[in-house]
Formats: sequence, C-alpha cells, structure tokens
Amino acid sequence: MSLAKNRRVVLARHVAGEPRIEDFRIETVDVPGPADGQILVRNRFLSVDPGTRSRLSGQASYAPPLALGAVIDSANVGEVVASRHAKFATGDWVAAGFGWQEFALSDGRGIRKIDPRDPPPSTQIGVLGIPGLSAYFGMLDIGRPKEGETVLISSAAGPVGSAAGQIARLKGARVVGIAGGAEKCRWLTTELGFAAAIDRHTEHDLAAAIRRHCPKGIDVLFDNVGNALIDAVLPLMRPHGRIVVSGQVADYNREPGTRPGLTNTNLFIASRLTMRGFVAFDYVKEFPTAWREMTDWIGSGALRYREDIEAGIDRAPGAFIGLFKGENFGRKLIRLD
Amino acid sequence: MSLAKNRRVVLARHVAGEPRIEDFRIETVDVPGPADGQILVRNRFLSVDPGTRSRLSGQASYAPPLALGAVIDSANVGEVVASRHAKFATGDWVAAGFGWQEFALSDGRGIRKIDPRDPPPSTQIGVLGIPGLSAYFGMLDIGRPKEGETVLISSAAGPVGSAAGQIARLKGARVVGIAGGAEKCRWLTTELGFAAAIDRHTEHDLAAAIRRHCPKGIDVLFDNVGNALIDAVLPLMRPHGRIVVSGQVADYNREPGTRPGLTNTNLFIASRLTMRGFVAFDYVKEFPTAWREMTDWIGSGALRYREDIEAGIDRAPGAFIGLFKGENFGRKLIRLD
Repeated sequence: MSLAKNRRVVLARHVAGEPRIEDFRIETVDVPGPADGQILVRNRFLSVDPGTRSRLSGQASYAPPLALGAVIDSANVGEVVASRHAKFATGDWVAAGFGWQEFALSDGRGIRKIDPRDPPPSTQIGVLGIPGLSAYFGMLDIGRPKEGETVLISSAAGPVGSAAGQIARLKGARVVGIAGGAEKCRWLTTELGFAAAIDRHTEHDLAAAIRRHCPKGIDVLFDNVGNALIDAVLPLMRPHGRIVVSGQVADYNREPGTRPGLTNTNLFIASRLTMRGFVAFDYVKEFPTAWREMTDWIGSGALRYREDIEAGIDRAPGAFIGLFKGENFGRKLIRLD
Repeated sequence: MSLAKNRRVVLARHVAGEPRIEDFRIETVDVPGPADGQILVRNRFLSVDPGTRSRLSGQASYAPPLALGAVIDSANVGEVVASRHAKFATGDWVAAGFGWQEFALSDGRGIRKIDPRDPPPSTQIGVLGIPGLSAYFGMLDIGRPKEGETVLISSAAGPVGSAAGQIARLKGARVVGIAGGAEKCRWLTTELGFAAAIDRHTEHDLAAAIRRHCPKGIDVLFDNVGNALIDAVLPLMRPHGRIVVSGQVADYNREPGTRPGLTNTNLFIASRLTMRGFVAFDYVKEFPTAWREMTDWIGSGALRYREDIEAGIDRAPGAFIGLFKGENFGRKLIRLD
C-alpha cells in the first residue's frame, strides 16, 4: 500500500571543492505504509548543516562517507502519520536524523518524542539540537571561560557561534564575535550581549581588528572557520589559552593539499596552548542536562537564537551551497508543508 | 678583589636560521669576590639545550629574547667557592641557571642545594633537571597513557624523549620511538624497553614506517620535532588521541614564514584530538614529587638515562650547533674542570 509520494534529495556525485547544484538530485519514490513495529513520519523541518560537507567527498571522516544515491544527512522534526509501533501514536512529534526527504519510515530507534508546543519544534534541531549542544559542550567542557576572560567566536552569528558566545557571556566572559556583514554584527552586540563584533566583510586586516577589539589578548578561541583564522589568532592567544575546534567551514571544501597550514605552532609551547576538536555526540549522556539548562536560558531570554527558514525540499541543495558563502543568517532549516 | 678569571660565552649576533659559530663569542672577565649576602659559584657542568634557540633570534617567545652580549642560558651545577650568605657555605653544591660561564655570583635566589654524591650531580640538570621534568609532566599530565595504549615518541633517544618513553612504558603503554641512527634505536629497544624504534636515517617513508610499527594507531604522540612530523602522524592518531608539544627542534631554526604548516587539522574534529604545549616550569610546585618518584625509578633501574659530555666551555657553541644535526646521544653537557 502506498500512502504518498516521497520526494528526497540524494547525492548525485561526490563533491570536489565547493558543492554545486549538480552534485544533488531530487527523486520521487513511493512511500510504503509502516510494517509491524514501524512508524511513518512526515518531516516538518530538516536541517542544512555545513558539517555534512565532510561526508560528501567520498573520504572517511568522523562519519563514513556517503554513497552515491544516498539521501543527504540532516536532523529532522516531523509528525507521526501512521504507526504500527507500540510507543508511538499518530500525531506524535519526533526528532531524528531522517535526512533530506519528506517522509521517513522508522523502527523507533534513535528518535525521540518532543513536545511541539514550547519551545517551537524547529528549536529541537537548532538551538536545542546539535548546533546548540555543540556550543554548550564545546564552550563549557573545552573552552571553560572564566569571569573576565576574553572569548573570541568565529562565525559568531551562526547557530553554533551565537549560542557559544552567549554561553560564554553567561559565565562572565567578555565575548567578541566575527561575522559577515553589518546586520549580523549589529545583532550580536545589540541583541546577544557580545562586547564587540568584527565585520569580516569590511575589515581588510582581520588580525589587526581582532587585536584592537581584544586588547588583553584572547583566552578562548571558539572556531568554526578553520586554519587560516586559527593561525592569525595564535599570536594573540594569552598564556594557557584554549582553542575549541568546533567547525572548519572554510576548509571543508578544500582538498587536503590545498588547505592553509597552521604555522604559528611555536606558540603552543610559548603560550602553553591547548587545541581540541570534538563532536557533540561525544556528550550524548549529558544531553538531558544541557537541554534542561538551555531551555531555562531560552525561557528567561538569556539565550537567544535565530532561524533562517526556506520552504520546500527542492531548496535544500541551494541552501547548503549558500552556507559556504555566508548567505544564511541563523540556523538554516527547510520547512516542509 | 678579583679571585679568578671568568670565561663565558655571549651572544655575538642574533641567530637567523641554523645557529653558527660566529653567533657566539667567548670573553674573559674578572670575577669579583662575593658582596655581603652573595656567594661565588664555580660551575662544574652546564647544559646545552635546543630550547635555548627560541631566545636567540631576537623575537619574544615564552621567555624574552636574549640581548646581544648577554651570557647564553643554561642549567648549571656548581660548587660554592666563596660565601658571604648565611645559608650557603664553601663546598656546598648547587643547581641553578647560571648560563655558559665558569663562575657566577648569586644572592641565593632561584638556586637549590644538591647532594653531589647520589645520584651524580650532572643528573640534576639532566634526567632530574628540566629535560626529565618535561618528560614527567608532559607525559603524565598531558599524554596520560593508559595500559595497552600506543605511545609514539620523536627524538626518542634525546634526554626528554628517552625519559618520556620510559615513563609511558612504566604506565603500561606500548612505546615506539623515532631516533636518528642504528645505535640510538638499539639503545631504545634493548636498554629502555621500547617495543620498537624507527631509524629516521634509513626509513625514507617515515609515515609508512610509523604505520607499520603502530598497527592499531597512536593514542599519544609525544613530539620533540615539530610540524612536519605532527602532520604526518595526525592521520594515524586514534580517537581521543593526545599530542604533547614538548619541543620543535626541526622548526626552531626556521623563520615563521618558512615553517611547514599543519594541514591535516580536519582530523582534530574527526578524531577528537587534543594538542597541548607546555613548559616544565608550569609545574614547579610539583617538582619535589617528581624528583622523589624519578629518583626511586633511577635507583631501581626502571628509568635509565644517558649523558653526552664534552669538556671545556669553548666547546659549548659547537655542541649547541650539533644538537640540530642530531649529533648528541643523550643529554648534552659541558664539564668544566
């Protein structure tokens, strides 16, 4: 029995360099009804994540590479539209990683029920999803900002950076952000409590601008960009500084041989620096603690977020390509109506 | 009143690239007798340290740059030959940082009395000095090897690497060393309990050799060499691996723009890696604990060391230059008779 048609986005060819629209293909397949022990979910939101890039080139990373013809990864929230599973009923809302498709069958593993009323369901794959959790654990477990320290955030208006900066501010740090464009910078300083924001579109000498806005040096660099930025910031790091490697959006599209290298590494000894990479999933057992605390912060207005939503699954590839051009302002999501 | 002539080595010009003999000058000055509250020390040993290179180029590092005409840094052990200080008597042995000179005046600050009988006084600036303490704290506080893990050590036959490898072995790790030459490699495996040693003089593909000797990957890289080695090892690091940045002997002589860059930095996230630089002085409050434990290990034969001693202060510049060519086998010291 076919309930509906499922439109989905699959990998048409492995990505080399910047992703292109031809790397993706939209296909339509029949949606079978759920078998015994299964549910059918109609996806309401799907996420568009820069980190997905690392799975698209056919080389192994922390996750195995995606095969040609496979559905592109994402986080999703959706509604159960048919259930033959004891723990789920039609009308339940769930969050899971179903990928870029309108419908998904599931046996219930790896998915969780959510309350769609408060906060809104999209937050479950945004500020309360992997971006927010990455900010929370990366900042609190690796960055560990102390009262009065200076914290620098790159891609600061993005979903990870904006949450990371606010969490550092809640711990008493002075937070400086780097973002692309006056509107994003204004949001950081007027709405999110950043002490300063540096517009990388207009600052031709980024290192000089950072030095000017961080006159005491930098205790924590929370980086979402990659080597070129880290290398520029290394000379500004204070003794015992921490570099949180959260994302490398400027390097994802570069082949290994063409990536800029970190060269100011003499400062690791000179300034006793620590650089550490992580993924939020490493902290999965502590997610409930983070959700509780972050939900409280959202409720009190201490933690704000922005979503950048387009409608229709056919917009997903273009939205993904736009991430690497800084076109999104907030968590990039696709709404499926 | 002049007691004697003091020969000392001073910086004749700031070093660019590889150090040369003309960068140093030996001069002879009168030794005044100690003023009230001072002692005069006749140095018996002085150390020749690769890390000193970072102070010789006129650029700031973790220590300020050395001025032209200043005495070259070193650790020393010596004998008090005249005292007008209540806490020191003629005949006392002391360890301190007096530099490359035959005599030194001191007001007693920053120096400590040692027992010259057991272990021998040279060990106070070798296996029990900064090299051994760097191995101890770098390995135990940053590397933190666990039973059964694989630990890779570069410059493994040097004073830091050889101690670091043995300490990892004492913690139950499988230790692999990289050293230059068959004699050094043989020493690592037959005398120090390394599981394997890789001769960088004969292995034309170092990464392949490391892969062969570390088939399960590497949990801890204790690096004394620099970026090129770290970059080659990054793809071999196991999840949650630790990179201890202990020294960068291959990079000290390179100008910042000519240093090889770290490019495999995508693996920081993929493999959740931590890289951390340190200097032993950060742990100064814990030195007594380390001395006790290491003295026990030396006494039981669990921790072995080698010293490479030349005689006469005029040998110091050549010995320093030789460090960067791998000419030393063990802790490089100059004995002053």
